[in-house]
Amino acid sequence: MTISPETIAYLGPPGTYSEIAALAAISNQKNSDKVPMQLIPCLTISSVLEAVKNDHVDWAIVPVENSIEGGVAMTLDTLWRLPDLHIQYELVLPIRHALISQSTNLQNIQTVITHPQALGQCQLWLHDYLPHAEQVSSNSTTEALDKLKTNPELAVIGSERAAELYNIPILYKSINDHPDNKTRFWVIKHNKNFSEQVGIMTSLAFSLPQNIPGALLRPLQVFADQEINMSRIESRPTKKSAGTYVFFIDLEHPQYKRLPNSIVMVLQEICETLKILGSYCRIELQ
Amino acid sequence: MTISPETIAYLGPPGTYSEIAALAAISNQKNSDKVPMQLIPCLTISSVLEAVKNDHVDWAIVPVENSIEGGVAMTLDTLWRLPDLHIQYELVLPIRHALISQSTNLQNIQTVITHPQALGQCQLWLHDYLPHAEQVSSNSTTEALDKLKTNPELAVIGSERAAELYNIPILYKSINDHPDNKTRFWVIKHNKNFSEQVGIMTSLAFSLPQNIPGALLRPLQVFADQEINMSRIESRPTKKSAGTYVFFIDLEHPQYKRLPNSIVMVLQEICETLKILGSYCRIELQ
Repeated sequence: MTISPETIAYLGPPGTYSEIAALAAISNQKNSDKVPMQLIPCLTISSVLEAVKNDHVDWAIVPVENSIEGGVAMTLDTLWRLPDLHIQYELVLPIRHALISQSTNLQNIQTVITHPQALGQCQLWLHDYLPHAEQVSSNSTTEALDKLKTNPELAVIGSERAAELYNIPILYKSINDHPDNKTRFWVIKHNKNFSEQVGIMTSLAFSLPQNIPGALLRPLQVFADQEINMSRIESRPTKKSAGTYVFFIDLEHPQYKRLPNSIVMVLQEICETLKILGSYCRIELQ
Repeated sequence: MTISPETIAYLGPPGTYSEIAALAAISNQKNSDKVPMQLIPCLTISSVLEAVKNDHVDWAIVPVENSIEGGVAMTLDTLWRLPDLHIQYELVLPIRHALISQSTNLQNIQTVITHPQALGQCQLWLHDYLPHAEQVSSNSTTEALDKLKTNPELAVIGSERAAELYNIPILYKSINDHPDNKTRFWVIKHNKNFSEQVGIMTSLAFSLPQNIPGALLRPLQVFADQEINMSRIESRPTKKSAGTYVFFIDLEHPQYKRLPNSIVMVLQEICETLKILGSYCRIELQ
């Protein structure tokens, strides 16, 4: 009997940290659940999530938060906009940036190209080692790799895997300014197809009724009363009118397997709109 | 008697929304305080703030938050890192993106270049009008304008002022997806040189002691008890260890001219580190 492969969408092209996370997700499958998986690269984070929402793929994996650069706005905004997406589990990937170039020394490098987040994460290193190089933004950490082959004055900041895939030498390893640089990824399914997960973390998003002073205090009080630790809060504009926000909150509740229904019901009363994104477990990668 | 001009640093080059905000700041000077002002373009937001911190300029102007895209991480992180910077007042600038190109029709345009935030703010328009054009990121909304002169297959998304400055035609006006698109800017001085401002808005930033469940509840409770409205909360990673955050909070207190000292003292006890960024007034531009 052959098992037909399942598909997982990620922010491509191959060589991005999203691809590394997707490969880790595949190799972390429990033996009992193991199925062949096919990786589907997408151009943007919103198209990764649209693909799973429209059942064009079985799974999606998206970056949620980097320990240095903060939340990934496109992921949060798209999760708020699209209905029925559900977190299955979380992967935490250590980020180690490499300087990739045909050049054999730093003096020859005139331009460094990469995603703005990767530029942000290597500012001190670039200041010390490549102060005169121009810094140029690209849509992903791998997009500009093709240009390197013919131009030794260019360098790209990307993963070691990207250098291998494109067969271009690594000039320096681990150039990120903060060694404790990690990105959280969520593995996501469309509600229709999901088997409900449990875990000691829950992520949710809500908007609050306008013009009630201290409105945010009420949900936070609910968590504090139940001794549920809020490990992260992030606000995003609703995009409807200035000064109105959606709050994204991560909770840790080692005493419960999922967020108790009694709490969900209280939150539903307090919030204007409430979305439970999922209760899930975290896998830390090395 | 001639008055020697004062200097104001902004995120350049000329034609950026930061320059438009800086020009508005100059023309909004009270008649009694009017001095000639010289604009100093800088390459990054952090260098704008470093310039005023090191007394290389008298003033700095930086974007803080866009109503669609959210907080400007580089501004918040740099204000937390640098000591003794103080908000003098806030300007709110309506953002109207134009499509700038030598081409006289959309069919010929193969590539659209601009800052990632501007790309984000025009996604629906680009989807409808330029679905086949490649979208390319640049460091600012004006960086790529020079390339337009020789290549009618390129277009840039930027301000109408940028099109005028570079003498390139505007093909479409007001292409942003959300008409209510505004950016808040802060006008900042170095403490040493500032005359203390007052206003019904106060912005502050703090970190909290670790491992105290519900720690964030305490400062929020202080504001709620005093009927001070929290108009915005945003968290940023401390960059020290994963899962630790700095909170940026905007308060509105029409009943006080500045944040009362009694509240500051309570916050100092609760917070690990507290920075009062300033009490100030807002000016809404048209």
